[in-house]
Amino acid sequence: MSDPTRIRDVRMRGFQERVDVACVLKMLDDRLQPLPHESIALHEAAGRVLAEDIISEIDIPPFNRAAMDGYALKGEETFGAGTYNPLEFAIVGEAYPGRACDVEVAPGQAVRIMTGAPMPKGADAVVPAELAEERQGKVAVVEAVPPGKHVGHIGEDIACGDVVLPAYRVLRPQDVAILAAIGAAPVRVIRRPVVNILVTGDELLPCGSKPTNHHIVDSNSVMLEALVRRDGGIPEKAPIIPDRVEAIREAIALTAGDVVLISGGSSVGKEDHAPRIIAKMGELAVHGVAMRPASPAGLGFLDRRPVFLLPGNPVSCLSAYDLFAGRAIRILGGRDRNLPYVAVTLPLARKIVSAVGRLDYVRVRISQGQVEPLATSGASILSSTTKADGFVLVPRDSEGKAEGDEVRVFLYDQPYAWSFKASGSPSENAML
Amino acid sequence: MSDPTRIRDVRMRGFQERVDVACVLKMLDDRLQPLPHESIALHEAAGRVLAEDIISEIDIPPFNRAAMDGYALKGEETFGAGTYNPLEFAIVGEAYPGRACDVEVAPGQAVRIMTGAPMPKGADAVVPAELAEERQGKVAVVEAVPPGKHVGHIGEDIACGDVVLPAYRVLRPQDVAILAAIGAAPVRVIRRPVVNILVTGDELLPCGSKPTNHHIVDSNSVMLEALVRRDGGIPEKAPIIPDRVEAIREAIALTAGDVVLISGGSSVGKEDHAPRIIAKMGELAVHGVAMRPASPAGLGFLDRRPVFLLPGNPVSCLSAYDLFAGRAIRILGGRDRNLPYVAVTLPLARKIVSAVGRLDYVRVRISQGQVEPLATSGASILSSTTKADGFVLVPRDSEGKAEGDEVRVFLYDQPYAWSFKASGSPSENAML
Repeated sequence: MSDPTRIRDVRMRGFQERVDVACVLKMLDDRLQPLPHESIALHEAAGRVLAEDIISEIDIPPFNRAAMDGYALKGEETFGAGTYNPLEFAIVGEAYPGRACDVEVAPGQAVRIMTGAPMPKGADAVVPAELAEERQGKVAVVEAVPPGKHVGHIGEDIACGDVVLPAYRVLRPQDVAILAAIGAAPVRVIRRPVVNILVTGDELLPCGSKPTNHHIVDSNSVMLEALVRRDGGIPEKAPIIPDRVEAIREAIALTAGDVVLISGGSSVGKEDHAPRIIAKMGELAVHGVAMRPASPAGLGFLDRRPVFLLPGNPVSCLSAYDLFAGRAIRILGGRDRNLPYVAVTLPLARKIVSAVGRLDYVRVRISQGQVEPLATSGASILSSTTKADGFVLVPRDSEGKAEGDEVRVFLYDQPYAWSFKASGSPSENAML
Repeated sequence: MSDPTRIRDVRMRGFQERVDVACVLKMLDDRLQPLPHESIALHEAAGRVLAEDIISEIDIPPFNRAAMDGYALKGEETFGAGTYNPLEFAIVGEAYPGRACDVEVAPGQAVRIMTGAPMPKGADAVVPAELAEERQGKVAVVEAVPPGKHVGHIGEDIACGDVVLPAYRVLRPQDVAILAAIGAAPVRVIRRPVVNILVTGDELLPCGSKPTNHHIVDSNSVMLEALVRRDGGIPEKAPIIPDRVEAIREAIALTAGDVVLISGGSSVGKEDHAPRIIAKMGELAVHGVAMRPASPAGLGFLDRRPVFLLPGNPVSCLSAYDLFAGRAIRILGGRDRNLPYVAVTLPLARKIVSAVGRLDYVRVRISQGQVEPLATSGASILSSTTKADGFVLVPRDSEGKAEGDEVRVFLYDQPYAWSFKASGSPSENAML
């Protein structure tokens, strides 16, 4: 627990010194690590993070099987077959998937076989149905197939002992299919962090209300819920908390999640109680960050649970979440800790002015392959984040960027409709 | 209903002619359109597709409000203030968020104000707490603030009548926040398509089983479930269907979703009943597509519900889903119909051979900025899709691609850890 007498009261005084963004990131990286494992069913596994290397205990396929519908025979015997020289084989049986085939294929014989069926003894190749004509118990083959052709061999997909998927893999749909195929169910994944979302403010009405008089509608909690889900966390939202020390302290004491987000009450106003409460209950590690917006953001710890103080202004809330809280949630969940946005590098259409000593989060639009900073950049202008295509981070040691400078834009949307060309300019991503 | 006597029985004969991929895509585009709307609560809205333009009925902010914690006063009166010339104002009241402030600020006066509080009458600017020192009922201001400074003005974020978000927008977290702020709840979105997943095969054990003897574990259904969810659909999985005409017909008749996926039984084997069943129940529009893998894929319609015949081979199933079924689900859901993968254009490390007249779906790895086709490319080799970083589509009019040719790679994973540079080569995406 921090010594409360050593916590400088910034209320109605302002911050003396702000912490560098890089220091906050380093603190998160140093102090947080992935959560323990849990076992889940395969139909819930896509998008989850694998907790351990998966080693196959079986071969796939587990037996030699037909890779085509057609006729199983000795490949060697088809040599010389052609449209003008069809070679005939006597059909001595049928092989279906899921059933053992008892027939043994002798010279001059073939077995009618379906894709996936176990190869009958004596056969080493499959003539596809397209290259054969069946008539009166015989099949005429019009093209040679070498031994081994159109046969799926034991272990050719996965061999027993293979590391099929590595730990920390974010499971793709096809990864889950492989886990099913090798019988690796249930599967051990990293537990999803539970994230408590607390919102304070006497001026706030619950999400879903109509704004009235001097009250506005809480919009941060519903945004934070969506962001937490995007980053693999499980959001748990509490009712809106009034701006009273006891109410805030009680709400924080009731949290049981892995991460706590507190929106509002983090700044230097008279009713900004959250920082001092955190300092008294645990540790207030950071209060005031060298960035714009979101400079009143803070970071504390209750035991080892990180607590993020997110400014109530919606753009500040978004940027402080993305840079700090989201990173913590991604680390705890075993995911890539970097920003979960695709980034593209493009030239600036207009200059960006920034102050040395702080990081700027600048909302931008992309137009004709150029990056245009949005004019309205106030921390309270939420529509700047809905009109923008993404954002640029101007680092603390930069005075800004000149027109024509290449900047990296983190794109808010999944840029499915775009393709990234060698020219650097995204272009329409028609499939064909 | 198609005339069943006109349906050529391809079983154990093979396809005579395969339909171009582009024709199948055009058929989907021509015949499908977004589903009707539904109303949902805001906390469910992120990632959903907006059904209509959202027009704000209010101003945001709805009143002039403080944008900083500090002191509200007449900005003009601070002109000339400086560290060596602090100007004093009498504090005549306090303004808090969510409460009306009855005090009127007269010349020489100031009101202590918190971020978000309504501006008191007579005041037109806020001096931030950092630029003021409060003592004995007075506040000394050490920097001039012009009128309007640090005040959020009525409608500066959103004006009444503004189109806040356009129809067909995939809602971002911040979009949901804006909907909350303007009181636009519930919100009308496009209904998510319900997708029935049917899997046929006597050789299949249910997902979660251990493979035994000549039985393998159904892996397609769990993969398809994940793919359907990714594309915004609601998967509904039926129990595994035996390879019997009546069982398959019955399972299809029981489907009530917007899309039906049938995995297995689509090819030219003796037990591939699904195409003829679809032809009898409705319309078999396509059977056999000029692509590799997945050439036995098919497309039918039951009334206006699309039915996709997906080959049982897992790679075929994946590629036929992605190219055709996924597109249908995305169109019905009002989403971008193109492939939901980020694409990057890079040079080939080794040539890709392809046949003119068919599209090839080639799994590739990216290594040192170059694209390497995977050697194992059989349709049954599922591990090729887990080892690959993505795939290249070689169009039907191409004989392949030479070493060094630039190709477009559709990336299986969200490439968060990469940045796309003007050089075209993805690089590490460290944030700072």
